[in-house]
Amino acid sequence: MKTLLIAAHGSRREASNQEVLTLAERVRGMPDLDFDAVEAGFLELAEPSIPAALERCIERGADEVDVFPYFLAAGRHVITDIPAAVEPLRQRYPWVDIRILEHLGAAEGLARLIGESARADG
Amino acid sequence: MKTLLIAAHGSRREASNQEVLTLAERVRGMPDLDFDAVEAGFLELAEPSIPAALERCIERGADEVDVFPYFLAAGRHVITDIPAAVEPLRQRYPWVDIRILEHLGAAEGLARLIGESARADG
Repeated sequence: MKTLLIAAHGSRREASNQEVLTLAERVRGMPDLDFDAVEAGFLELAEPSIPAALERCIERGADEVDVFPYFLAAGRHVITDIPAAVEPLRQRYPWVDIRILEHLGAAEGLARLIGESARADG
Repeated sequence: MKTLLIAAHGSRREASNQEVLTLAERVRGMPDLDFDAVEAGFLELAEPSIPAALERCIERGADEVDVFPYFLAAGRHVITDIPAAVEPLRQRYPWVDIRILEHLGAAEGLARLIGESARADG
């Protein structure tokens, strides 16, 4: 069972965290999705934390979890903090294949999305 | 002449600002783009500032500028700071149609992009 975990920063504004949870739900509803489940977790300021979310994925039967850093820039959070949050779970569940994907800001389709959104909205 | 201005946060990490400039270049190169020009500007910590970038768009002939907030959450930066950065330019150039589009985190196609990126990368 393969799960996608959207790893976001987390905010003091509950509405921002809710935006992420809603997005995870929308990804879950995508046709042709290559995952059996989609969850969200937060680096700080919101629940569930990334380790707690990972643990939940595994308890629900995931033997493969792809962690998608929902960040625009490859800063400290992406380079250091997310790997550090994931590592203890890798050690605790060595039979689970936990991979960290490229962050959103590096997504191939981002330029197209911006061009199309701007047209739709403008 | 219609210009798209990508309005990003700006970072102390020069590489993050460079990521935004590169993205603006990639948007500029999109086929069927609905804009004559694409620029980038930063809310803080990097140059050009949003007002300076807007001014440059107008000096280069834009009579319509769509400002795209390159932010994931509708927090203070999106709700307050970007409108505040834009307003003086609206007053200085009342003949230019400056519009603020929806922020990236609200883009219709974002769920699909995440699903597809995760599949491509996973």
